Amino acid sequence: MALTAPVEQILSWYSSDNPGTLTNLVRLLGHGALAGTGKMVILPVDQGFEHGPVRSFAPNPEAYDPDYHVRLAIDAGCNAYAAPLGSLEAVAARFAGQVPLILKLNNSDTLARVEQPHPAVTASVEDALRLGCVGIGYTIYPGSGARNRMYEDLRELTLEAKRRGLVVVVWSYPRGAGLSKQGETAVDVCAYAATIAAQLGAHIIKVKPPTAHVEQEEAKRTYEKYNIPIQTLADRARHVVQATFNGKRVVIFSGGEAKATDAVLAEVRELAAGGSFGSIMGRNAFQRPRAEALELLSEVIQIYRSAR
Amino acid sequence: MALTAPVEQILSWYSSDNPGTLTNLVRLLGHGALAGTGKMVILPVDQGFEHGPVRSFAPNPEAYDPDYHVRLAIDAGCNAYAAPLGSLEAVAARFAGQVPLILKLNNSDTLARVEQPHPAVTASVEDALRLGCVGIGYTIYPGSGARNRMYEDLRELTLEAKRRGLVVVVWSYPRGAGLSKQGETAVDVCAYAATIAAQLGAHIIKVKPPTAHVEQEEAKRTYEKYNIPIQTLADRARHVVQATFNGKRVVIFSGGEAKATDAVLAEVRELAAGGSFGSIMGRNAFQRPRAEALELLSEVIQIYRSAR
Amino acid sequence: MALTAPVEQILSWYSSDNPGTLTNLVRLLGHGALAGTGKMVILPVDQGFEHGPVRSFAPNPEAYDPDYHVRLAIDAGCNAYAAPLGSLEAVAARFAGQVPLILKLNNSDTLARVEQPHPAVTASVEDALRLGCVGIGYTIYPGSGARNRMYEDLRELTLEAKRRGLVVVVWSYPRGAGLSKQGETAVDVCAYAATIAAQLGAHIIKVKPPTAHVEQEEAKRTYEKYNIPIQTLADRARHVVQATFNGKRVVIFSGGEAKATDAVLAEVRELAAGGSFGSIMGRNAFQRPRAEALELLSEVIQIYRSAR
Amino acid sequence: MALTAPVEQILSWYSSDNPGTLTNLVRLLGHGALAGTGKMVILPVDQGFEHGPVRSFAPNPEAYDPDYHVRLAIDAGCNAYAAPLGSLEAVAARFAGQVPLILKLNNSDTLARVEQPHPAVTASVEDALRLGCVGIGYTIYPGSGARNRMYEDLRELTLEAKRRGLVVVVWSYPRGAGLSKQGETAVDVCAYAATIAAQLGAHIIKVKPPTAHVEQEEAKRTYEKYNIPIQTLADRARHVVQATFNGKRVVIFSGGEAKATDAVLAEVRELAAGGSFGSIMGRNAFQRPRAEALELLSEVIQIYRSAR
Amino acid sequence: MALTAPVEQILSWYSSDNPGTLTNLVRLLGHGALAGTGKMVILPVDQGFEHGPVRSFAPNPEAYDPDYHVRLAIDAGCNAYAAPLGSLEAVAARFAGQVPLILKLNNSDTLARVEQPHPAVTASVEDALRLGCVGIGYTIYPGSGARNRMYEDLRELTLEAKRRGLVVVVWSYPRGAGLSKQGETAVDVCAYAATIAAQLGAHIIKVKPPTAHVEQEEAKRTYEKYNIPIQTLADRARHVVQATFNGKRVVIFSGGEAKATDAVLAEVRELAAGGSFGSIMGRNAFQRPRAEALELLSEVIQIYRSAR
Repeated sequence: MALTAPVEQILSWYSSDNPGTLTNLVRLLGHGALAGTGKMVILPVDQGFEHGPVRSFAPNPEAYDPDYHVRLAIDAGCNAYAAPLGSLEAVAARFAGQVPLILKLNNSDTLARVEQPHPAVTASVEDALRLGCVGIGYTIYPGSGARNRMYEDLRELTLEAKRRGLVVVVWSYPRGAGLSKQGETAVDVCAYAATIAAQLGAHIIKVKPPTAHVEQEEAKRTYEKYNIPIQTLADRARHVVQATFNGKRVVIFSGGEAKATDAVLAEVRELAAGGSFGSIMGRNAFQRPRAEALELLSEVIQIYRSAR
Repeated sequence: MALTAPVEQILSWYSSDNPGTLTNLVRLLGHGALAGTGKMVILPVDQGFEHGPVRSFAPNPEAYDPDYHVRLAIDAGCNAYAAPLGSLEAVAARFAGQVPLILKLNNSDTLARVEQPHPAVTASVEDALRLGCVGIGYTIYPGSGARNRMYEDLRELTLEAKRRGLVVVVWSYPRGAGLSKQGETAVDVCAYAATIAAQLGAHIIKVKPPTAHVEQEEAKRTYEKYNIPIQTLADRARHVVQATFNGKRVVIFSGGEAKATDAVLAEVRELAAGGSFGSIMGRNAFQRPRAEALELLSEVIQIYRSAR
Repeated sequence: MALTAPVEQILSWYSSDNPGTLTNLVRLLGHGALAGTGKMVILPVDQGFEHGPVRSFAPNPEAYDPDYHVRLAIDAGCNAYAAPLGSLEAVAARFAGQVPLILKLNNSDTLARVEQPHPAVTASVEDALRLGCVGIGYTIYPGSGARNRMYEDLRELTLEAKRRGLVVVVWSYPRGAGLSKQGETAVDVCAYAATIAAQLGAHIIKVKPPTAHVEQEEAKRTYEKYNIPIQTLADRARHVVQATFNGKRVVIFSGGEAKATDAVLAEVRELAAGGSFGSIMGRNAFQRPRAEALELLSEVIQIYRSAR
Repeated sequence: MALTAPVEQILSWYSSDNPGTLTNLVRLLGHGALAGTGKMVILPVDQGFEHGPVRSFAPNPEAYDPDYHVRLAIDAGCNAYAAPLGSLEAVAARFAGQVPLILKLNNSDTLARVEQPHPAVTASVEDALRLGCVGIGYTIYPGSGARNRMYEDLRELTLEAKRRGLVVVVWSYPRGAGLSKQGETAVDVCAYAATIAAQLGAHIIKVKPPTAHVEQEEAKRTYEKYNIPIQTLADRARHVVQATFNGKRVVIFSGGEAKATDAVLAEVRELAAGGSFGSIMGRNAFQRPRAEALELLSEVIQIYRSAR
Repeated sequence: MALTAPVEQILSWYSSDNPGTLTNLVRLLGHGALAGTGKMVILPVDQGFEHGPVRSFAPNPEAYDPDYHVRLAIDAGCNAYAAPLGSLEAVAARFAGQVPLILKLNNSDTLARVEQPHPAVTASVEDALRLGCVGIGYTIYPGSGARNRMYEDLRELTLEAKRRGLVVVVWSYPRGAGLSKQGETAVDVCAYAATIAAQLGAHIIKVKPPTAHVEQEEAKRTYEKYNIPIQTLADRARHVVQATFNGKRVVIFSGGEAKATDAVLAEVRELAAGGSFGSIMGRNAFQRPRAEALELLSEVIQIYRSAR
């Protein structure tokens, strides 16, 4: 099957990667309802680890079962399903080849009280390979005093992943003593976080939808001096996309907390209008009953199909 | 010998594992009085290390001898005997092949005063292989500020164990600055701890019987909102089993402090009713005189035989 | 093409290096408008990582694009282009062989609050090789309590780089609890920082233009006792060059914050008069419109051409 | 030469070890005046490192010379001589094969003030092999907040030593913030320390003669409840031996500070009566004039010969 | 050329070393004006790193040039020249084989404020080999809370150096929170420091000339009880030599701060009378004009020639 123009363009931005990685990138861009559009919707499920099982799955108890998620990703036509080690081990053999898998390599839980937020590395590139994944996922917390350890662990994982032909997806979620709570989603911080992930070698970067708040004093002066539009979410998404190698890296946005369907779709429309390459939608998908989730994901996909 | 249906079902949940690990899982499920039932009772003896020799063995001085425990496990028809390095080195050659062995890879003692509870890694996968073990055991303390180091050490041990065909058993025992004393056995925390162990790649997960206390505020709201039954121990065991990949991981419960026979059996009956895959019973076994211990274990086994 | 005398002289100072490294040193000295002069102008762009995207690129939005910088370096006749991993991955294949590349192996961001300044190691020698670079770049912060980790990471990277034929460029930027703010650019500190980099095995050393301030009490007594001239920037540059193995290591100076063209050129003239081997000019180049940047770089190059 | 019954019995406890280690164990048990008795007296000399040279050797200045000690061990008929790297390097070639050597792999000095006592690892298994040693020695401080690092370093050294056929001797000396000064030699702590060493895989365990003090509250209740005899040193030695795998590990006791000959011999008699497998006697040996030391060691050996 | 008796005697003390190391030891003892005497004078130049360039080289600006030092060592007939990585890289090829080189593997600077003094490891055994060195140099700070890391790094470097035939020279310079300022050169501390270096496996040990101060209370009682002479520097040197395996390790003394020629020579005479194996003289050599330095070194050498 010949590549579409949008996929060819994206590949041109990753020309330094080896054929193995390009192959897996093509698999990711070529799967599901958005195949060939250069856009993507990914189903990520690490909330069991990150927030605990009851908060994550009680709203839709079928979701306690790892099979549920991979089936949802397949049936909704997502580009990929991303999850921690245990979840993928539970399904990788039985659903082999049915949807691209991304192994999430680090995770936090909310049981410990720690000074500097810092996820534990909980799986390896070796695991991703033996489970047939197309890529690895990894979360960084720019703003944390433990960032060096995170960036350096990522450096080693990224080098190994690229050498062995995997795609690297980085969740760049600012938090830690260097930032106010509001600053975690500030537009300057979000754009900065996307840049850092790109510089660390990520192929695909996941950030949160930024607010209009500006956290850093010097950044604020710059936004004002150059009159950079950050009023609408579409403006801010465009700014983040620009901040990520002028749009030459695939940036996608997370859906955040569960909310009403209208709110989700409104947000996605703004993001798509701003040039987002797609969405990664967890709680808003799996905490709904399956039928609703399929419908929502279908509408999200439709928005991205129309966005080009 | 053909596999029984319950064992086949369990194996189906571990289909991403290699034949070596599946073989050892079959050995574990196929040994002793519960062979083929899909249930298991394990004799664990690490109290000499964890609580000191006199508190552990003075009640039944024969138990100072490492031979005592392995013989007890064999004669009682346990599925396996789990112990630290020294204990297994003392018996592995002379009792070779008579009962599946699980090498406990980390341990704490109570002599030091440490800020964040954190067991030392005291043995290796290499040791487990040279001693003929079917698997490794490892304790995590979710809730401890040292959890990252624990999870990351476990990640490396798990990867190596799986590569080399061993079963991974994780003791998930919440404690540390992030939790109140009561919270260590809270039902939300216990379910969360089981999820974490499953996500870290454990094949078999050992938790403590949970109380009806709920530790985390957000979890409490969820239990109330969805009216999740946690009144009886059977309810709570069922909840923990559900929280562990919807029952698709083998979860077993520990026996805790030594207590009267009736109390032990009452607890086991509730756990079995809630869907527990078995019990891991240390002090309640080896601190009794041998005849009593054999009788107790026999009754426990009987409960699990009838549970299906 | 035969080597020029200045290049031959420089090579004589690096006679302990292997032919691979000498080859890359010749490539660096033999490229661009200063080819063969023994002088060099390098375009470094790590500000996206170090200061965030908006502060770095809003003044000249074309500069959000990684292609922009490599083209600027090529068209201006720079000896090399230095940047972090992501930036080089974005261009290395498409611009292969058009300008020597230096992979910056460590970087800081300004989002976290850390006690001791300490860049994260964000790329590896392996990356530099797979991207076709002639050398690696690395920043040390003499004066930081974390200096040991920095020096020791550099030791390993340097050993590997030299073994594999790469050139080692060290940014020696004093900062940390051991120094006052003013002391970071003090002449004694700057000379000391250049010596440290040379002793750590750097081939090329980048320091900031030193001020006439003297930070350390004992150093002050020495400057006075021996009447060492440090009044003009040319004096101070000469002193730094002397402090770097009596001029037998290539020392270049950074341009610092963006400023008016006249101020830039005046500074470069002083540095050149003091024997600097060149300049490394980032913000003053890429924050100007392209035409202005090309003109400025052309004038800087002209100054160094005339300096011999 | 056929093995004696006591040696055969001891070997039966180490049946999980490989022939290389068993061979070195036989060498240790088969050398010197106690050859074949299953008892041992070892000369350890690490006081130069641990307490400094003048405190250690001024009482008998010949002892500054590393040759002195190895000759003393040979002439006294000790089973082995144990010392740090430098001391063994000084004699290993010239005295090759004349007495079993044990390389002490970690050591502390008294010059630094440290928060948690923690010896440095100062030699390796590789060193022990190249110097022809039969085993390695290693000190742990149960009770120190740094115990994890100690146990984990020991785990790696032990694994390597056993793989390569060496005997592992562990000095288990409780100290640190978790214990009172008196608690360092408390009978419960001493028994606990011996258990820990056994569980960590030690073949031979060296502890201090315990006092009748009981440190841990819960242990105290147990001693009282079960009426465990700890009044005489012989009682306490017997208790420690029992706590060490019911006597199935070789436990020996150190001589402690230099004292009068009568006091030394009285202590040894009690230990032997309690079932100690031998003594490890440093200062009481080498701080006496050579003739006196030989006589003392001869009497100690005589006590152990008669103990069976 | 046959070995002289003094060299043969020294070699006998290192009989556990491999022929590679013995060969380099012979090279060291066989070079320069003291060849074959069993004595040595070494030129060490790490002050550029340790104290900064201006304090080190302003008194004699020729000394900014790395060539200056190696030529001085050659022309003065020193046994060896010791320096950090950069300095040796600058000269190793051009002066190949003209004087034995010792690569200093760790270094401190005075720019940072650190809690526990701790040099960074700045070069490797691999570097020493590729630069043709006969040995490595390494500084330990007994008395520092960071001593474990220092000793453990040294252990690894020493093992590798000995395996690959290099000589190990240890600078043992007590300092840190465990010692008073005066205690850093106290006679008990200096003797202790020499013992530690010997036990860590050093072939050659460099200490500072000790004062008559005694730092540790228990040591003081011992000096008094045994009436150990420590009044003259010769007495103290003799004591240090005795404390270093009874003189069976090569102990040399450093020259310390620059001072008048008479003072230097008086000190050296005392050290030689006390049995010192030589001197290591940096600032007192290179901070003098070359002619004076050559004369001073010649006189120092003469003292050691006459000392036998």
